[in-house]
Amino acid sequence: MNFEEMVSSRRAVNFFNPDKPVDPSLVKKMVEMASKAPSSFNLQPWNLIILTDKEDKLRLQKCAMNQEKVSTAPVTMIVLADNHGFLEGHPTVERVFRENIKAGTMTEKQRDWFQKARIKLYGKNERTIQAFSCKNTGFFAMALMFAAKSLGIESHPMDGFDHDKVMAEFNIPENFYIPLLIAFGYFDETKSLSAPKWRKGYDDIVVRF
Amino acid sequence: MNFEEMVSSRRAVNFFNPDKPVDPSLVKKMVEMASKAPSSFNLQPWNLIILTDKEDKLRLQKCAMNQEKVSTAPVTMIVLADNHGFLEGHPTVERVFRENIKAGTMTEKQRDWFQKARIKLYGKNERTIQAFSCKNTGFFAMALMFAAKSLGIESHPMDGFDHDKVMAEFNIPENFYIPLLIAFGYFDETKSLSAPKWRKGYDDIVVRF
Repeated sequence: MNFEEMVSSRRAVNFFNPDKPVDPSLVKKMVEMASKAPSSFNLQPWNLIILTDKEDKLRLQKCAMNQEKVSTAPVTMIVLADNHGFLEGHPTVERVFRENIKAGTMTEKQRDWFQKARIKLYGKNERTIQAFSCKNTGFFAMALMFAAKSLGIESHPMDGFDHDKVMAEFNIPENFYIPLLIAFGYFDETKSLSAPKWRKGYDDIVVRF
Repeated sequence: MNFEEMVSSRRAVNFFNPDKPVDPSLVKKMVEMASKAPSSFNLQPWNLIILTDKEDKLRLQKCAMNQEKVSTAPVTMIVLADNHGFLEGHPTVERVFRENIKAGTMTEKQRDWFQKARIKLYGKNERTIQAFSCKNTGFFAMALMFAAKSLGIESHPMDGFDHDKVMAEFNIPENFYIPLLIAFGYFDETKSLSAPKWRKGYDDIVVRF
């Protein structure tokens, strides 16, 4: 399947076959493919809580307007955007810096420059922090849904949840924001999909002021 | 090229062949492919300013730490996230509502419910607004870079710019936030690409608390 077919056939699927699990090796494969998504300074400020246990999914469903797909999908993920993902001392930031030195794309002397650049671009205020974490996690989540589709697995991105309840229920540390949940699985063939939704055209998207 | 090859071979290219323009039909094609990206309630809170004129690109380059690729790339885009993209009265919101009625997925009576749901999920505060606009625009931008790659076109997402200067220089209305710029073009074959960068593995990404 080429990308045009993939982007056109990827749909937010509401009904998953509850009797057809996703093989854990495919879950791992899709996460590894998505890990190649680009990010600001390669900081990759994303994490996943992956739920496959029925009890866990029901706990999440209770925080997500009781949407059935949260628990009928064989795999449901809580996608986390790390608002500390640009700060000095963060393990990933340190690792990125060390890997850059190893690769010869930065030198030890650039630590200060690197820190100042990150603070200036992302640490200015709540808006810049949230843009940093949610944009990059958006790249990752989109890549994850395409990666799933490429493996024959359908997905459903969801916003319909109580952010603070999910944070509390899963003991998620305050540095994270949850931009979305995603349900993954195989389409329930006994159901039918609605027609593809309207999309903005080229002339709606491209602007000049 | 399957998705796994595409996601692995997509690289942030620093050097574009300045003598090889991107055919406008391909630019249109990649935008149309990316327009199929999912979004919150299908609200598609994204727009693009597409620059191909040298003077325009140089104006942008001056606001972007004078990075040469901004003007040597044949096509450079300012990606806009619409922070008003969930508000009642916004033309896209109204269109989405009408299209849902036409498709039978909403009824006229749900206007009030739809508005309240949007405000509750996205309009709570600056963090939720920014998460809404930047996450969805992240989906779109990621799809756009994959769409380009599928057409043989390389890309470079950029954060290194003065947000407020770009807003002023291109008269961008205050409802927009600029999560990134993207340069597009063909790789300059006289240059070489550095090795692929380190990425977090599955065990770094998946967490439990």
